[in-house]
Parts: sequence; C-alpha cells; structure tokens
Amino acid sequence: MRLSRYFLPNLRETPKEAEIVSHRLMLRAGMIRQQSAGIYAWLPLGLRVLKKITAIIREEQERAGAQEILMPTIQSADLWRESGRYDAYGKEMLRIRDRHDREMLYGPTNEEMVTDIVRSFVRSYKDLPLNLYHIQWKFRDEIRPRFGTMRSREFLMKDAYSFDIDAAGARHSYNKMFVAYLRTFARMGLKAIPMQADTGPIGGDLSHEFIILASTGESEVFCHRDFLDFSVPPADTDFDNAEGLQALFDRWTALYAATSEKHDPATFDAISTGKQVSARGIEVGHIFYFGTKYSAPLKATVTGPDGQEHTLHMGSYGIGPSRLVAAIVEASHDDAGIVWPDAVAPFHVSLLNLKVGDQATDAASLRLEKALATRGFDVLYDDRDERPGAKFATADLIGSPWQVLVGPKSLAEGKVEVKRRATGERELLSVEDAVERIAS
Amino acid sequence: MRLSRYFLPNLRETPKEAEIVSHRLMLRAGMIRQQSAGIYAWLPLGLRVLKKITAIIREEQERAGAQEILMPTIQSADLWRESGRYDAYGKEMLRIRDRHDREMLYGPTNEEMVTDIVRSFVRSYKDLPLNLYHIQWKFRDEIRPRFGTMRSREFLMKDAYSFDIDAAGARHSYNKMFVAYLRTFARMGLKAIPMQADTGPIGGDLSHEFIILASTGESEVFCHRDFLDFSVPPADTDFDNAEGLQALFDRWTALYAATSEKHDPATFDAISTGKQVSARGIEVGHIFYFGTKYSAPLKATVTGPDGQEHTLHMGSYGIGPSRLVAAIVEASHDDAGIVWPDAVAPFHVSLLNLKVGDQATDAASLRLEKALATRGFDVLYDDRDERPGAKFATADLIGSPWQVLVGPKSLAEGKVEVKRRATGERELLSVEDAVERIAS
Repeated sequence: MRLSRYFLPNLRETPKEAEIVSHRLMLRAGMIRQQSAGIYAWLPLGLRVLKKITAIIREEQERAGAQEILMPTIQSADLWRESGRYDAYGKEMLRIRDRHDREMLYGPTNEEMVTDIVRSFVRSYKDLPLNLYHIQWKFRDEIRPRFGTMRSREFLMKDAYSFDIDAAGARHSYNKMFVAYLRTFARMGLKAIPMQADTGPIGGDLSHEFIILASTGESEVFCHRDFLDFSVPPADTDFDNAEGLQALFDRWTALYAATSEKHDPATFDAISTGKQVSARGIEVGHIFYFGTKYSAPLKATVTGPDGQEHTLHMGSYGIGPSRLVAAIVEASHDDAGIVWPDAVAPFHVSLLNLKVGDQATDAASLRLEKALATRGFDVLYDDRDERPGAKFATADLIGSPWQVLVGPKSLAEGKVEVKRRATGERELLSVEDAVERIAS
Repeated sequence: MRLSRYFLPNLRETPKEAEIVSHRLMLRAGMIRQQSAGIYAWLPLGLRVLKKITAIIREEQERAGAQEILMPTIQSADLWRESGRYDAYGKEMLRIRDRHDREMLYGPTNEEMVTDIVRSFVRSYKDLPLNLYHIQWKFRDEIRPRFGTMRSREFLMKDAYSFDIDAAGARHSYNKMFVAYLRTFARMGLKAIPMQADTGPIGGDLSHEFIILASTGESEVFCHRDFLDFSVPPADTDFDNAEGLQALFDRWTALYAATSEKHDPATFDAISTGKQVSARGIEVGHIFYFGTKYSAPLKATVTGPDGQEHTLHMGSYGIGPSRLVAAIVEASHDDAGIVWPDAVAPFHVSLLNLKVGDQATDAASLRLEKALATRGFDVLYDDRDERPGAKFATADLIGSPWQVLVGPKSLAEGKVEVKRRATGERELLSVEDAVERIAS
C-alpha cells in the first residue's frame, strides 16, 4: 500500500475527549473516528487490525469444533419475554418499535436467538455436541460511554454457544472453549490469565474471565507469578479428548488468580512473596456455563439414547474484537505510539523512502516493496514527499513491528536501515539481507 | 468438513411462506432461517456463500482503488437533518430513541456519514481522488417484507462512496466502479448487463443498474443480444487511465438495454429481430453520480490547486451481498436444487461415501477428502450412515459443482464416479484421475 494514496488521517493534537491511552493513540493514528457517543467508524488502519483479530479468533473457534453462523442484529422482543430477560435487562438494551409498532431490540447478546434456532432443528442427541458462534455487532446503551472502543455502545462480539445433552458434555464443551481462548490470546501476542468470575446478567454456575496484564488496565488483579511462564496448549491439541482437556483446565486453574471482586487476601498472602503478582488487568474474554437457564424456559430439548426428552445444557463464550484492539494498544505502546504484536499489526513493515524523487532511494524502495510483498508481508510504503522526521513520527505512531529506512547516505554504501519498533534496535543491511532479517 | 458433524438442517417439506424459488431452496438447503419478518439468520452453508461473495467484491473494489472502512449501523438523526433526508425518508427508515432520548436511526445507506468523515479530515485536492467502501448490515423497514433475502429488512450492503474535486474526476471514479462491477459479477459466474436507471431516494444525474437475466426475475428487461457475448475487462485493466475506462464504459452502454421503467419500445423495435432480447431480470448492483447533492449541504469542501474552496463531487455504488445470494439461486437452479457457480459455491465438492463402514469405501473417501483439500478445494464429506438416495438428494439440493460418489461396486474396479452438478454428466475414474478431473 502506498501511503500517498492511503486514507490515514493522523492527528497532530491529542484529542481532549480521550481519557485513556488506547483511545488517544487510536484516534491519533487514524484508526477510528467517533460518529456519535460511544459509536465509532473504523478507518482503514483500524479495520485491518480488527480483521486480523477476527481471523485468529475464527481459526481457533473452528479448531475447537465451533461452527460459524451469522445472526441478525435486530431481534424480536417476544423471544426475550420467553426467557424472562426482556424486562430484567434494563436501560442498556436498545429497544425499538418498527413501523407496525412491533417491539424489537438491538441484540446485546444472543442466548435466546441461538436457542431458538437450535430448538427448531435439533431433535436428537445424535446432533450433539453442537457449538455455534458468530461475529456480529451488538449494542449496549451505556449511560456514559467512554474509553473509545474499549467500552463502546456499538461493539463487535464473537459469541459462541454450546449445546450438550448433559452437564458432563457441557463441561467438555466449556473446556474446549477454555483452551481455544488460551490459544487465541497467545497468538495475538497476549498473556491472558483465566480468573474465576461473577456471571452477571448471563447467569450460571461456572464462569471465567480472561485477563491480560497492562499497567493502564481498568481493574486490579492478583495472581501467582508462575502463570506468566505457562506455555499454551499446542495447535494439535486433541479437542475430542475430554480427559485431556480437563487436565489442561485443572492445570490452568490450580494456581491463585482473581479479579478484585473475587479477591481473597488470605489465600493470596499464603503465596510466597516472590510469587505474588498484584497488577492491573483488562478483561478480554468471558466464558459461562449456565446449564438449562435458557433451554428450560425456551423448551429446547432433544431425545436421548434412552428415548426420553432431555433439556439442553448450554454455555456461552464471548470475545469482543473491537474492545480487544484497544486492549492490545493498552498493553503494547510507548511514548511515540503503538507497538503492534506481529500477528495483529495492520502492516508488518513501514517502508520509509527518505528522499522521494532520488533515483537510488526510489529504486531501492520499489525493490524492497516488491520483495517483501512476495514474501507475504503487508507493507505500507511511505512515498510521500515529506521530511524524514514526519515519516519517522508516522511510522512510530502507527506501530508497524518493522521499519525499513531507505536514505541516500546509507544507500551509497549499499545499505538500508532496519529498525525493530518494539526495541528500537537498528541494523544496517543490504536490501537482500533486510528482507531476510524481517522474514526470519 | 464432515457432514455428520456439520450443522446443515435441510428441510424435507417446502416451506409454505416462501413465494419464490430462491427463498424455498435457501430454506430447504439449510442456508438461512427467518428470525422475524424480513430478518434472517445465516446458517453455516449460507454464510459460506455470503463470504465467498464478499471476498470477490472486496478484491474488485480494491483493484479499482477503493479502500475499506467500516461505519457503524446506528447513526445520529442530526446528520440526516443536515442533508434534509431525515424527514424525507419516510417509514422505511428504522428510527430509534436511545436512553437519553436522542434521535438515532439504523442506517439504510451511508451518504451522510461518509461525507461527515471525509469533511472532517480531507482539506486539499492532493488527498483526492478518494473512494471509501464498507460492507455492513443495513435496515429498511419494508412494509411487507417478502422473497427471503432478496428483499429483507436487515440486509448486507457493500456501499462505496467516491470523492473528487470536479465532475470530470467524479466521472473517472464512476467509470472505475462501472468496470469493477462488470468484473465482480462475471467472477461470480453471472452475466450482468448495465442499464440506465432512475436514481430514486439517492438522487443524482447519472445512474446504472446491473441486471442479471433469470427466468424467475422480478422485472421485465429489454436488451441487445450482443451483450450476452461481451467479454468483461481483464484483471490488468489500468484503472488510472481515464480515457481507457471511458472507452470501456462507452462500449458497454452503446447498445440498447433498459428495464421496463426506462423502456422505449420504438428504439427496441429498431433492433433487428434476431438481436432483440426480452427477458426477466434481477437487479444486483446500482451505481450513482450525484455531484454535490450531499457535499453542498454538509459543506464538504477542499482547497483546489487554484487556492479556492471546491465542493466535492460524489458518487455512490451499491451491491447487496445478501440479496446476491438469492439472485444467484434464482439464476442457477433446477428441480433438484441449487446449482452453484464454482466461484461462490459453499463447497466445491460433495464427497459421497455410499457405504459408510465398508473398509474400501471409507479408505477411498478419506484419500479423496485429503487429496482434494490439499489442492485447495472445500469438500463436504457425506460420512453419514444414510442410504445412497438420501445422500444424492442432499448433494443435489445444496448444489456443490462437483459430486464424487464412492460406492463398493465401482470401487471393486478401482473407480469412483465424478458427477458435474450443472450438466449431470458422469464419469468413472480412478481416485487420482478424479482429483485431476476436478482440478482441471
């Protein structure tokens, strides 16, 4: 992509309304624009990150056996009356009347609708287990939306819903998602720690939040230091092996980890001092097992192998990709801008031609652009007629993991400069070696 | 994908509420489910088609220089008051009040919002031309929604918006999208004919609808037969060449083509009889040039090379992917079910093991599944314990372009049967040759 043609409206000033660093940086980098209170448009740079995040989520959901569907944003109020949540949900639910005065709503979550789909088609235990997920916009009418896409009114959510014939099956389904979440966040370059959680308006008996540590995090968290060295289950994990998954779950929940709401100082203090971590965290995922809470009122049943009707046992599993973009920025930035983990970076490489119009730098830049693209890298080529200082500032702000600086002086010696954004480390390399360095 | 684990709720009965063939087949094939009047959930099979369609649209939009953003579904009424459309739009607009009693709406289109984005960032002619598109859910509160996803209330739309400093630039932008649309539909296996159109609530001076011919189409259309033999502009078309694009546009609009609203019988009758085509058609895309209709009231201007302020010239360009799924089914089906064009088929191959549990058919099916996947094909392996007749019916209904039948009798002679869904043509081939046949 050529920067001279790319719609990247960077802001020079720090926007006053932005209270947290991710909001400031996402606005300054030209990733998002607020359209109404708590409602954002995603500009090209931001959308690239959102897509990389959803692609990873999809891969790990499918690996764990979940199947993608896409439910609509607008739901009928009747379905929510069946579950009893229509009146209970309060003002966060955006209620709508259509032209025929029918009561509708903008879905804040989809337990009712997915249960309605499953009850209409699934009749037999042979069709189970079943896990359906979708990635769709949701709306929660927060009274005072703040913090950019970290807590917006219209937000993107991946929500998965599992259906099993009994509690044991549902436990297996829960553990599949538990492991999928560990893998999902790790692939994004995040260290996420599962913590027991309250179940809130979703309800249920068993629930975990996945929390990443970030000095600017929204809440206080406490955990055992060994979590930081745990390695996540590999890609070839056998998700059909219920015992194996339970063992993984047990290992990841044996050590102390709690948000402030669930914090037990006595247990925490019993951990040896060197192993105590008290930090700030951000919730990036939340999973629930709630048995028959929705299937019972909605009468979602199947015939079991015993010929009897069984009410389905369900769980739900959420990740907010639009929130996650902000969470990653909170966890990974410095004074100059964003520092993207490689897997979710909008561009892998910022290629800076420091003297546009110079025959040598133009030619070397073109060669690099082509060679890097051939290797599968997303390259943003800064071909603008700007002074080097402005190009450095843009590249640091938008946070590509690699920068390649093509200047006339180094190039006279056959070299370009390769800079790693995270460490600031610089190397002078030939064009060929620069490509190899980034590919390695 | 294994059919035994795949959520594919085929219906045996033809649903009574479905009035047109695409609606019937999409319900019967388990692609969609109605959640409220005119509001559908996309089940796994349907979502696969929707994604293949949007992937092609994206590629052709980017090729023509459009950049992807993502605007929210909920918009502020104030913006629509600025353009004067808030009161004009009528009851098709879904109007909403949030918890603070602010007037909002579910966007039926995005001219106002994208103009708001552009006016807030773009100051100079140097930032032009600019074309921003997004693929997002829209809502039009039809009084009597019918025809499945062909005319649903909540529907997916790709809408692009071009911004230029003057009419000449805007004309070039219009032609870029014109050519992109020709390519987009052709890649989906559709023959789309551009026809002059009314501009309706979008407004403007110049507008074309893209119409595909289908015997069950919604409207009557008239055109010159030579259109059917036109070959679309190639992938390496130079979109920066304004004259070249204008020549392509001229060629594609020189012959007679009109919907019934614009039909001129005298001109049509002047075409030699053998060249007259009178048929039924379905609108699959609509493009508009409307100059300063939105940019003037919203004061979207840039400084030109002359130092003066210029009001932006705009166009907008729509394709409805959720509608397109239904349109393709209308254009391509038979009595047994859907006949997907290869490029948008949810699965390329339906692999039918006709005797599950038989060592030879199981082994051959596994080999085929693996070999076809390695070649990049999406394979739906029917590994259910069902009689062959049920498997044939499912495969025909869901319409994979290829079927591979693995039965014990043929296999004893080292052969499997390869069937082309569109023609019914069958061949007995070795496993290896079957893979080559499909790949060729």
